[in-house]
Formats: sequence, C-alpha cells, structure tokens
Amino acid sequence: MVNSPLRIDAVVFDGFEMLDLFGPLEFFSLLQARATIRLIGLETGLISASGGPRVLAEGLLEAGEAPDLLLIPGGIGTRALVSHHVFIDRLRAAAEASPCVATVCTGSALLARTGLLDGKKATTNKRAFDWVLSQGPAVNWQRAPRWVCDGKFWTSAGIAAGMDMTLAWIADRFGDNVRSEAARRGEYQFADDADFDPNANT
Amino acid sequence: MVNSPLRIDAVVFDGFEMLDLFGPLEFFSLLQARATIRLIGLETGLISASGGPRVLAEGLLEAGEAPDLLLIPGGIGTRALVSHHVFIDRLRAAAEASPCVATVCTGSALLARTGLLDGKKATTNKRAFDWVLSQGPAVNWQRAPRWVCDGKFWTSAGIAAGMDMTLAWIADRFGDNVRSEAARRGEYQFADDADFDPNANT
Repeated sequence: MVNSPLRIDAVVFDGFEMLDLFGPLEFFSLLQARATIRLIGLETGLISASGGPRVLAEGLLEAGEAPDLLLIPGGIGTRALVSHHVFIDRLRAAAEASPCVATVCTGSALLARTGLLDGKKATTNKRAFDWVLSQGPAVNWQRAPRWVCDGKFWTSAGIAAGMDMTLAWIADRFGDNVRSEAARRGEYQFADDADFDPNANT
Repeated sequence: MVNSPLRIDAVVFDGFEMLDLFGPLEFFSLLQARATIRLIGLETGLISASGGPRVLAEGLLEAGEAPDLLLIPGGIGTRALVSHHVFIDRLRAAAEASPCVATVCTGSALLARTGLLDGKKATTNKRAFDWVLSQGPAVNWQRAPRWVCDGKFWTSAGIAAGMDMTLAWIADRFGDNVRSEAARRGEYQFADDADFDPNANT
C-alpha cells in the first residue's frame, strides 16, 4: 500500500471546527504507513475547538521544514483570524513553503487572505459563501463543487466535505485502491464526485 | 430546534481513534443549543490519539454528576485497557450513573468488560469482531448492524459509523428534523438504516 511516510501539518486556532480537522487527519492516519501528524499554531500550547474540547499545538506555524501537506480547518475562529496580520503572514510563509495546501470549510477564507489563492479556483462552505468571497475577491470561487483542486491548492466545502477531499487527495497521490482501502478501514461511504455538492443550493 | 442544553462526557485514553471521538462530538456540537462537551480520563492531562495529536482530559472518569450521554470511542488503546481493572471499574461506575452510554468501534470492548452489556444486543467494528466478542461472551453481539440500541446502550460499528449512530440518537431524542438539520450543517450524508452496514461482510 503506502510505503513512504507522509508528513501532515495541521493548523489549529481557538474556535476551529472539530470535524474539519479530525475528519481529514483520520484518513491520513488510516494509510498503511502511518502518517506523521503534527498540530501547529501561532504559539505552542492548548487550543480550544469551537465545540469545547482542547487540543495541543505542538509545533509552530512557520516556514520551517515543509510537510507533504498543510491542512487548514475552518470554524467560527476564522472570523477574527482573517484580520490577524501576524497569523496571516505566518500562514502565507508556511503555505508558500508547502508542496500541497488543503483547506476545509471556512479555512479557505484564511488561505484567501494570504493572497495565494488569487486567480485560482477554490470553494468553501456554501452557508458562509458570501463572507468567504469577501476575504478574497480575486479568487475564482466555485459555488457548486464539494471540493476543488487547482495546482497545489485543495479546498473543500463545509465540515464533512473535508473527508471526501482528503480521500480524493489520497487517490490522486497513491491511487484509487489506496483510497478505497482507507475508506473501508474507516467504514466511511465517501463521495467521489468533486463537482456534486448536495449542499450547494441550501 | 433543541432548547435544553445537552451534557456530553467523552472518555479519552492513549491510543483512541480520532474520528471515533470527534465525529460524534461534531454532531452534538452542531445542535442549535450548543452541547457542553467534556473530555474525561482516568487522570486529567494530555492524552495521545493513535494518529498522534494530543487532547486534554479536563475531567475525571468517575460516577460524579451524570451527563446526558457518556461516549466511549475505540482505538488501538482498547487492547491494553480491557485488562486495566481500575479503568474498567471507573468506567462501570460512570456508565451505571449515566442515563445513556454510546460506544464507537472497539469502545464496545471496554463497555463489555464492565459486564453492563451482558444479555444486551450490541455491535462493534466488524474487523475486530472476534476479539471484541471475546471481551464479553455474554453479550448478544450482532454482526450485521451499523449501530444497535438496547435500552440505554447504543453501540456502533467502526469509526465513521459513530457519526450515523450519533445522528440516530439525536433523531431519537429530538426528532428527525433536528437530525436532518445537524447533518445539513455538517454537510454529511448520513446513513439512516441501522440494520445495513456495508462493511459487515468485509
């Protein structure tokens, strides 16, 4: 199956949405060769999910040794963070250094604020669509898809869509059989049509 | 929608499976009146998921003030914990005190070891089925379902099945419309047939 180790850095901040983060991380961890998963923040220490539970940021958000993939979840905490210049500057540096960047839900608003999505196709949570659009007017936002890949940037619709995007990324990198096996181990019925988002018109 | 607050205690231990825990917690947190979610452990402090990330156990696993629901995830850490007598004794006390107990995946092995599932219908991860069975020979284990409810005990198949069980619990307690709204907000296509587990024969 997957033999080379995979390094995933996942950005955490107060008010992140639990499933945006742990849905994707679950499927990376289900790859046969366990991924090395690191939660990173503007500072190290405890971070509160919007639902209450706290997680530990063990690494720093910075342009250090680039992971294979930088994951950016969404959540209510993004509403304040889009205006946090130091956070956005560090996120830009880390995203520029990473060969692949993936966002879930309103995590795309954070990435849009770095300017790196300008001119690129991207999507986000349909319920927060207008707000996210306003964070990156030069982004080629797509309202219909469940997830979008444009170059090294992968962006998904809301919450659970992040799992389907992650499995699509796994299929793209390791093949359909590896995706199917990860989904089977997770007992998850994945969506494999990026262009169909049942929530696009709600 | 849901007006009364809901108290959820979720048991964490080293080697828990990320989505077993955070899938269900996401859908509790998506209820209109935010649930109060607490991670509890044998001791307070940092706990490592099998995939690497660390979370904070802020409360103690004990028969204190009972939550509305006690959630028990599975994961590789259950293999050692079934023989940890102090843990199993505390889990029994907490489960006896709770009006509702839900397990995901091999979390059912931990609950089975308390004896509280004896004579009751329950299910678990189909890939670990024989091992879980051996932890509770007097349990009426069901191989086919995606989740099972018997009295106050809800048990689900592996990993992602915990989200479907949680949404079924929400429907049972608050009605189908509340379930549908939580699933829509989470952009999740839930399974609503408890008796059909597509992974039952894999």
